[in-house]
Order: sequence, then structure tokens, then C-alpha cells
Amino acid sequence: MRFKRSERIVFMTQYLMNHPNEVVPLTFFVDKFKQAKSSISEDVQIIRETFLKEGLGVVKTVAGASGGVTYKPKMGAEEARKVVDEVIDRLQEKDRLLPGGYLFLSDLMGNPALLNKIGKLMATLYMDEDLDAVVTIATKGISLANAVANILNLPVVVIRKDNKVTEGSTVSINYVSGSSRKIETMVLSKRTLPEGSNVLVVDDFMRAGGSINGVMNLMNEFKARVKGVSVLVESKEVKQRLIEDYTSLVRLSNVDEYNQEFTVEEGNSLDKFVQEESQQHESD
Amino acid sequence: MRFKRSERIVFMTQYLMNHPNEVVPLTFFVDKFKQAKSSISEDVQIIRETFLKEGLGVVKTVAGASGGVTYKPKMGAEEARKVVDEVIDRLQEKDRLLPGGYLFLSDLMGNPALLNKIGKLMATLYMDEDLDAVVTIATKGISLANAVANILNLPVVVIRKDNKVTEGSTVSINYVSGSSRKIETMVLSKRTLPEGSNVLVVDDFMRAGGSINGVMNLMNEFKARVKGVSVLVESKEVKQRLIEDYTSLVRLSNVDEYNQEFTVEEGNSLDKFVQEESQQHESD
Repeated sequence: MRFKRSERIVFMTQYLMNHPNEVVPLTFFVDKFKQAKSSISEDVQIIRETFLKEGLGVVKTVAGASGGVTYKPKMGAEEARKVVDEVIDRLQEKDRLLPGGYLFLSDLMGNPALLNKIGKLMATLYMDEDLDAVVTIATKGISLANAVANILNLPVVVIRKDNKVTEGSTVSINYVSGSSRKIETMVLSKRTLPEGSNVLVVDDFMRAGGSINGVMNLMNEFKARVKGVSVLVESKEVKQRLIEDYTSLVRLSNVDEYNQEFTVEEGNSLDKFVQEESQQHESD
Repeated sequence: MRFKRSERIVFMTQYLMNHPNEVVPLTFFVDKFKQAKSSISEDVQIIRETFLKEGLGVVKTVAGASGGVTYKPKMGAEEARKVVDEVIDRLQEKDRLLPGGYLFLSDLMGNPALLNKIGKLMATLYMDEDLDAVVTIATKGISLANAVANILNLPVVVIRKDNKVTEGSTVSINYVSGSSRKIETMVLSKRTLPEGSNVLVVDDFMRAGGSINGVMNLMNEFKARVKGVSVLVESKEVKQRLIEDYTSLVRLSNVDEYNQEFTVEEGNSLDKFVQEESQQHESD
């Protein structure tokens, strides 16, 4: 079957999008299209430039025998700001404040279009780390972790707060919930995370960080290295935070349960985008 | 900014892929590229034909004021068979059988590449239904439901087995677990599913169907219409199944816990693919 350039470009664009953060050998396209490597390289060049111009991410080519083309769906600072603004708008909707200063997030965690944008933002922050898995805590973190892992092309590992027969053999730890000071349990199936993995921890809401601190301890049991922690919402009103190094999309403060009032502002994720872009400009 | 045809095609391909099952007005592309509608239509035609030739789905154009172009990422029968075969292979791996005849699935439910294929298969089966949401049961169903909902471009609604403050006001029902005959509870946040919605129910494992029957009852409370039920694995060894109308990717039988032996074969999903393709051929 013969393919025109425009047809090759349709196929290659969709293929790279469906295989983010993966080295696709140029020979794969050469064989598929029975076309010289130079033509395929020109096709890649067109995709690279359009993606760059439109802020859709970076298409990298690595030469050599083990080389190929890799699509990194990175988000720019401008788009990241739009995503954070959208999250802030959604959080300021009526009646989101729940008893205990929690925010109702289940609808946002079930909105694939918004989740994909948030996932791309979080993934961009950690795309250059050498990661093996995205770790999260059931239940609400799962959808967010999936969105991040889809972009990074990594497995998702789900820590549960209950022990189910369907998990096989598990490792469990006890931790003190930062807010309620209650002792709770976390459980992770042994077979879902190989020992010594590099992980990114993702969750929807962080207060004192008790849960995330629990995740850290559990990760120790798996000899895993936590290369990053990213949350959608962090609560600012915490006397002593158990976790220091993390990124958040938005910060919640001035919570007044009685009057259903609170403040949402941007978290520290956006700082990282701006930092990175100014560094890039300097090195240009 | 001027765009060449090849650049327009890169952009339009990625845009349609990021907005499946959504009507994108042609004027959106006309305005973006400052190009005549006829040229944009030709671009769409190239994308449509390549997607068709490569089995990547259907690109539909609807004429008229409210018209536009819609990408439906439908899977063909051949690819569906490959996905089912891959699932069967993975399920036959060593030590998957757990006490009580359950299968260890957590690793598969954390594998985004495989989940996306399974999600596309399930989504294809129900793409022509008029759906408002994908409903699932925490915890393991969530990743699968996300994969299906991503293709259908629908929200995910998560039913929990515990009642958390973070869910706001909830509706709960009690149901009898088909296998253990124990009474359990299911809880759904009122705000996550509008009354009268059309829903697709997705889960990872079905035995007698007690949980799914519980979902049906809970859906009644929300005046929702269940337009379909789809599970990854169904267990064949059930005396009385509580649910009749469903699709499954694979079927589990001859479970011998002592010797860690069992049979996995294809479920009824593939029949539907074959049926549909032969109907299409007849109407050609």
C-alpha cells in the first residue's frame, strides 16, 4: 500500500500521541511506509515544528542504532496557568465546602477532559525524572494518577486503606492521620510494585500530609525512592506539615465552615513552570 | 501565522484525538488556519481515509449550521480479538489465582497501555448508545472506567462501599453479595450523577453479579437508565446469575484452587464485533 506524505503524517501523529514518552524507532515508520529514512525524518520534522508552534509538546529525535523519535507531551507555562485558573474557578463553585474543612472534589475527579489537563500539567513537572511508577491512595487519587500516568506512560500503583483478598499478599503499615490524629492502616499488594522503583506520588488533597507521610513509610518497605509528590489541592491552614518537598496546583485557606467561605489561590506548581521557561531563555 | 497543509493535518489529527466523540465545528479550523472551508474539508477527508485504512476509527462529518467533524475511536473486530488474546495471555500467567477463586488483576488495572486498549474495546461496544456517564465500583473498577470514559468523552461516577465525609450527601443501598451471601452497602454521592442519566456500568470482575445488581438498585434511586453492563472477567461457575444482559471480555472457568489451575476463554464481547461487521457487509 502506498502512502502520501499527508497520510503518513496523520498516522505518525496519532501513533506518537498514543505512545508518549516512548522511543519509537524510525525504522518502524520506514518499514511501515516503505519510504526512505530521509523522507520519514522530514515527516517527523513537520510534526515536531507544528507541536512546538502550538505548544503541544516536544518531539525528540535520537540518532544511532537504538535511536528513534520520542513524543514528550509537555505543557507550557501559559497553558498551565489556564488549567490552574480553571481549577480555581471550579473550586469556587457553590457548596463545595464539606464538614471538617474538606472540599467536594468527586465531580472534578470524574471529569476526563479536566483530569487530562491536570494530568498533563503534573506530568510535565516530573517528565525528566527517571520514574518507574505513579503511586496513589484509593479512592479519589486513582483517576488523577491515571491521567498523570497516561502521559508519562507508566504503571499506576494503588495503595488501599483496607485489605482485600483480591490484592494477594500485601505489605501494610500504620500511620497517624495528620488531621484527626487517628491511627490508620495502608496496604499495598506486593506484586504491584517491584523493589527499588523510582516513584511519583500523586493525590487529590493534602492537609498535614499524614497520608502522604504514610505513603513514604510504605515506599521504604518496598525500597522505593520517592522522586516527587504532587497534589491537586493543599490546605494552607496546617500548623505542622509532615511533608516539605511537594508541588500543588492550588492552595486552600481562610476556611470558614459556618459561612461556607474559603480562599483558593494558585499553588507552587506554576512557579516551577515559570522558573523552567526563564532558564530555557537564558540558555538560548 | 500561515500553516501548510501538512501542518494543518498534524494539528487537526491531534485535536480530534484529544476530543473524541465531540462535534468540532469546521469553522473552528477555518478560523484557526484562515483557510477556506473547502481546504479544511479536504484535510478532514485525508484524516478520515487514513484512520479508516489503519483501523483507527471513524471520522464523521455532519453538514449544516450545527455541523462539524466528530472522531469516533472505534475498534475493529481484528484488533478486538488481539486485545482479548492479550488479556487471556496475561491472565494465564503464574500465581494469578487467589483464595476464593478470585483472580489477581491489580497489575493489569495499573497498566495504562493495556487499559487503554481494553477501554477502547468496551467503548466501541456502547459508542452508539446515548450515554451520560460511566458508572463503576471502587476500587479496581475505577481505572477501567476511566479508560472507557476517556474514549467516550463522558464523566466517571464512582460508587463506594464506604461512606466518606468527602462525598457530601449520599444515597446508599444494601445488597446481598452473590458469592458470600453477606449484606453489604453501596454509597453514591448525590452530586456526582444527575437524576435521569443514561449510564454504562463497567467493572473488572463479575461472579454471580451481586455487586452489579446492587448498582442497578442504586441507579433506580437516581432514576438512571442502565444502557449497558461490561466487565473484564466473568466467572462462569455460577449457579444463578443475577444479571442477564452484559458483555464480558473473557470468561473464567474450571477453577481449581488447590492446583492453581483454571481456564480462561473469550467472553461474548467478540461476538458483538463479528455480528456488527457482518451486518455492515450486508448493508454495503
